[in-house]
Amino acid sequence: MSTTPATAEKFDAVDVIRTKRDKQRLEGGQIDWVVDAYTRGVVAEEQMAALAMAILLNGMDRGEISRWTSAMIASGERLDFSGLDRPTADKHSTGGVGDKITLPLAPLVAAFGVAVPQLSGRGLGHTGGTLDKLESIPGWRVALSNDEMMAQLGSVGAVICQAGSGLAPADRKLYALRDVTGTVEAIPLIASSIMSKKIAEGTGALVLDVKVGSGAFMKSADDARELARTMVDLGTDAGVRTVALLTDMSTPLGLTAGNALEVRESVEVLAGGGPSDVVDLTVALAVEMLAGAGRPQAEDDVRAALGDGRAMDVWKAMIRAQGGDPDAPLPSARESEIVTAPSDGVLTHVDALAVGVAAWRLGAGRARKEDTVQAGAGVELHAKPGDVVVAGQPLATLHTDTPERFERAAAALDGAFRVSDVSLVTERTSVVLDRVA
Amino acid sequence: MSTTPATAEKFDAVDVIRTKRDKQRLEGGQIDWVVDAYTRGVVAEEQMAALAMAILLNGMDRGEISRWTSAMIASGERLDFSGLDRPTADKHSTGGVGDKITLPLAPLVAAFGVAVPQLSGRGLGHTGGTLDKLESIPGWRVALSNDEMMAQLGSVGAVICQAGSGLAPADRKLYALRDVTGTVEAIPLIASSIMSKKIAEGTGALVLDVKVGSGAFMKSADDARELARTMVDLGTDAGVRTVALLTDMSTPLGLTAGNALEVRESVEVLAGGGPSDVVDLTVALAVEMLAGAGRPQAEDDVRAALGDGRAMDVWKAMIRAQGGDPDAPLPSARESEIVTAPSDGVLTHVDALAVGVAAWRLGAGRARKEDTVQAGAGVELHAKPGDVVVAGQPLATLHTDTPERFERAAAALDGAFRVSDVSLVTERTSVVLDRVA
Repeated sequence: MSTTPATAEKFDAVDVIRTKRDKQRLEGGQIDWVVDAYTRGVVAEEQMAALAMAILLNGMDRGEISRWTSAMIASGERLDFSGLDRPTADKHSTGGVGDKITLPLAPLVAAFGVAVPQLSGRGLGHTGGTLDKLESIPGWRVALSNDEMMAQLGSVGAVICQAGSGLAPADRKLYALRDVTGTVEAIPLIASSIMSKKIAEGTGALVLDVKVGSGAFMKSADDARELARTMVDLGTDAGVRTVALLTDMSTPLGLTAGNALEVRESVEVLAGGGPSDVVDLTVALAVEMLAGAGRPQAEDDVRAALGDGRAMDVWKAMIRAQGGDPDAPLPSARESEIVTAPSDGVLTHVDALAVGVAAWRLGAGRARKEDTVQAGAGVELHAKPGDVVVAGQPLATLHTDTPERFERAAAALDGAFRVSDVSLVTERTSVVLDRVA
Repeated sequence: MSTTPATAEKFDAVDVIRTKRDKQRLEGGQIDWVVDAYTRGVVAEEQMAALAMAILLNGMDRGEISRWTSAMIASGERLDFSGLDRPTADKHSTGGVGDKITLPLAPLVAAFGVAVPQLSGRGLGHTGGTLDKLESIPGWRVALSNDEMMAQLGSVGAVICQAGSGLAPADRKLYALRDVTGTVEAIPLIASSIMSKKIAEGTGALVLDVKVGSGAFMKSADDARELARTMVDLGTDAGVRTVALLTDMSTPLGLTAGNALEVRESVEVLAGGGPSDVVDLTVALAVEMLAGAGRPQAEDDVRAALGDGRAMDVWKAMIRAQGGDPDAPLPSARESEIVTAPSDGVLTHVDALAVGVAAWRLGAGRARKEDTVQAGAGVELHAKPGDVVVAGQPLATLHTDTPERFERAAAALDGAFRVSDVSLVTERTSVVLDRVA
């Protein structure tokens, strides 16, 4: 049945929804229109919700996802780093527990003459947000204008700040909708959401850290690989040199989950110490970013820059440039409680999701966007999988300013630490599981 | 990840959406809550849109549909006809082109001592609405209070009026949402929408006329049978004696599509004449309604009541009781145009959808709820499939008050009449295709 549109709109929202509902391919014009009309408010929230669910259940092919991403980019401004005297590289992580990698990574890469414009987000749910972590540094300022960001990239070489509202506004609107309609978990929409912002941001090279495991958004390696492949294709199609690493998120990264706790651990890494998994992943991602930016470096050379102060110097300059004091003491929580090993044996598993939820419940994260976070709250681990433990030994310390939170945080950790009484020789697996290019 | 609801709500909308999205069964409590919370505005339109799309694509089983229907009934009032001195029976049609059956059917059934409380709707798109048709009778009043309806059922035995806003308000809200989100075509939602109103209305017996073919909502017999089976199960589970007939809607019912045109044809049927398919379907449905109400009648006896004035007497009383003048001349359109046969031969097909769209474009229907309809507009057919025609012979007359509509109406009829030059002996098929009980 043909209908007579009352307006000058090129398409009808219900026709677009029906196309995807009936497992047909959306044509380019339909995609351009629906993203633009949604941004303009002509396509209603409930119509986009129905379309998002149809996309989640019926999928989109590479061409559709690419067009969708372009339409989201076209909804806003694009940045241009071509005026800088050096190449740019950026990293995006799909989010995990204890994932503080951006903090040591950005200065490390910048130390090799590649500019790192790291536009970051806040945490929601059990995964932390880079901006929340950095805000535990006294004086540090999250919001920069485009001009300030560009100036800092020229002077310091690295910047970590809030993404401006001008990049892909369609994505911001769509993400808020997906969050309340059970449509977050659609690979085409996840991929286009991430990549529209990264492409609009104008980076020359991009490394994606796609996390897999209980603490990650993607629980299975197959889903993670599909997301990685989709995003690498999108980046490549848009002329951004893009590589993805699939990395382990079955157990937390490093020994801390919580804002100031993670800054402290990052500074340890920048001082040449820190947990080996954090160091290894930081170095692996830096090697990829430098190669993507056309400034390849051997892994050993990159690792050396963590030990000899080069990365630390950029870190301090970067924090100072945004008003922070890198030498000020970090806030700590008022109260703490210890979780101990139930028996002797080998610690075979520390569950990432459980630790993330515990840190969140202690006050490190937020349940709603408008919540505030506690700088000092979180979980500090004292043992990692493979360690031999004895009954009663501390496995973790819980930190919070509000001790009434301990009970629910401890409940989240119930069963999170698995101790085996046989003396298994547990191989520590590499944090990097796979590479997609 | 467990979340902490901020309110006293028993469930979380996103959890409910995810359950159906992930092809799980919704539990009874989830269904009760989501329908109630949607009616209260706690579940947002975009959340229900995502859920409706997930239901459309992933389905619901008999138990889920039954519970969903009960939840919609519980959102509003229920009527009670148990105070009447006779049993009640009702009919529902899924809608077709030229489907004026309710008009002769209600008085025919009432003539046998069974009360017919026919709460009807208006037309939208290419299918007509019973209320629009009756409003072409001068003076006839569409809105009755529950008390007026009950009084008329006691005195006349039949009433056709607008459903009050108190029945299944959740359905009204959900239907409006489905209409704009491409989620109308979900059998569980269609079935529960229809049946929630019919069960809340309190009829003792119900006959469903499920139409199949180009002019129907269900294009395939399989879909129609599934819808019929779903609705019959729902009625039976709710204690309503329910039967469904699958009937042909590949070609229009009778020779008219349009409001006053269809009233005129209905009066012909009530006077013992009229097209045989309209008579046959009216009689078949009446036989089912009477049997369901516990007052079985032989088909010949029912047919006789159309010829001997018994049904006509109830019709006139019914129209008068609602302020209408059954003897007043019906409105006719100011302009008409004739469509002729392109060649000699046998008319093998008259397409229902094409005729419905043409009538709609002539002004008989509305594109948006707020549109008005023309009482006299529509299509009058002069030949039916199986008729021998000669080139240039009139096949149809188009009627409208606004002659600028002729061009688009005629365009809708392009290819609608198929004339074959071989002298095929075309069997006229029965309008009733199947019965589901």
